[in-house]
Amino acid sequence: MMDFTEKLNAATEKNESLLCIGLDPDPELMPDRIGILDFNRAIIDATRDLVCAYKLNFAFYEAFGSDGFDALRFTADYIRDEIPVIGDAKRADIGNTAKAYARAIFSSLGFDAATVNPYLGFDAIEPFIEYRDKGVFILCRTSNPGSADFQSLNCNANNETAPLFELVADKASQWNEYGNIGLVVGATCPEELKAIRSKHSDMLLLIPGVGAQGGDIKKAVSSGVDANGKKAIINSSRQIIYASRGKDFDSAARKAASRLRDQINRYRK
Amino acid sequence: MMDFTEKLNAATEKNESLLCIGLDPDPELMPDRIGILDFNRAIIDATRDLVCAYKLNFAFYEAFGSDGFDALRFTADYIRDEIPVIGDAKRADIGNTAKAYARAIFSSLGFDAATVNPYLGFDAIEPFIEYRDKGVFILCRTSNPGSADFQSLNCNANNETAPLFELVADKASQWNEYGNIGLVVGATCPEELKAIRSKHSDMLLLIPGVGAQGGDIKKAVSSGVDANGKKAIINSSRQIIYASRGKDFDSAARKAASRLRDQINRYRK
Repeated sequence: MMDFTEKLNAATEKNESLLCIGLDPDPELMPDRIGILDFNRAIIDATRDLVCAYKLNFAFYEAFGSDGFDALRFTADYIRDEIPVIGDAKRADIGNTAKAYARAIFSSLGFDAATVNPYLGFDAIEPFIEYRDKGVFILCRTSNPGSADFQSLNCNANNETAPLFELVADKASQWNEYGNIGLVVGATCPEELKAIRSKHSDMLLLIPGVGAQGGDIKKAVSSGVDANGKKAIINSSRQIIYASRGKDFDSAARKAASRLRDQINRYRK
Repeated sequence: MMDFTEKLNAATEKNESLLCIGLDPDPELMPDRIGILDFNRAIIDATRDLVCAYKLNFAFYEAFGSDGFDALRFTADYIRDEIPVIGDAKRADIGNTAKAYARAIFSSLGFDAATVNPYLGFDAIEPFIEYRDKGVFILCRTSNPGSADFQSLNCNANNETAPLFELVADKASQWNEYGNIGLVVGATCPEELKAIRSKHSDMLLLIPGVGAQGGDIKKAVSSGVDANGKKAIINSSRQIIYASRGKDFDSAARKAASRLRDQINRYRK
């Protein structure tokens, strides 16, 4: 079986795409009278030749209770033969407990990658990294307004001063023994994205925040990709999956995804 | 219906206790051939007159898939009339998504309080705080070895330099408009606990890390309580719920809980 990186590279090549679609089911935005799983399947069928990955944010599923939990698993099952599935769970807990989270996401639910929060330090992330065939994306500079509250504080470490998010990136790079660590950096902060990319030329970046959150697509792509126009995953959720609320929601999603993929490709080079 | 603080105060008074029991079901440590829910019910029945709260760490439940999710809900239902239940989920996500997490924990699952991670800043925590009748514990200085990686970095803010965890505590205090915010500070770092308590004399502290994690109970209690010997919740999980693996697991848990409660009370004054 392919590991996360192989799967990602294969899908990127085959579909000529850095686009990741966020499958975040929201009953207030979904077409009427459709279940989560049917909705996801229709979006996946309509877009699976256009993406390099899918990302499922756990919050939207947990809001449905145990049905949502099943939907996470079935959706991952439905996708995962060709396209990698990222579990956007932003987990972190003390070592013993982080092990249980990693097991839940990677073993029970079968995701290919997960997002994790760095605040608790190494032993909260290590159990995820130990799954060497899985991808681990550490939150670095997030796309929300509050991200500046702590992530941008200037901190002193190793006789220099740098914003916290850069120190997180440095640590992530040190921890990247197996080459399965990436960073989450929001499209809403292109300067920070540029700083991270120039310091960590080979790190895989997961970039949310284009579309509904207002990140500029041109800046996000040109600041985020590596020298070969790769190593970046550009995520969009609402802009694509809620392109229409009518019966044509899947074909509308396909159109929106196709347009965004092409736009991203224009700025890759 | 009582809000979180009222429920906590009532249970603290009635049971003369600052002890919180962590219900973290681990099949490798539980008695053979017992389900999670039966295990939890037996522990709860054996200890409900000895505690001020119960805390459920979501990781241990999610590792069981959708059955675990149901167990979270049924356990909270079983407890919650008299004793507050803390959902130890350590969540945080961008505003729109954090709303879904808050809804899942407080509305769908019916917990009285939740733990949240500060790395994403205010808008990731605000949707939790907006449930004014619920408690919100912000991770400040966690009990694990890796907590020093970032939480202890000296940061510059407002023309002064302080460790990140202290700046988190300061922000939490500013955000505490409704009086429903508390902090998580590990028993394994009594100096930091003392620093937080002396600066935030009236803040409620959730203190994990005694017992299996090695935190000194005397130091944790004397550094953690306020001037009246209150405003601290001392959590213990493994030391109590796995006191025995035999048929006597519930009575053994009762003995261990009773001993720890009395020990805590000795150091409160």
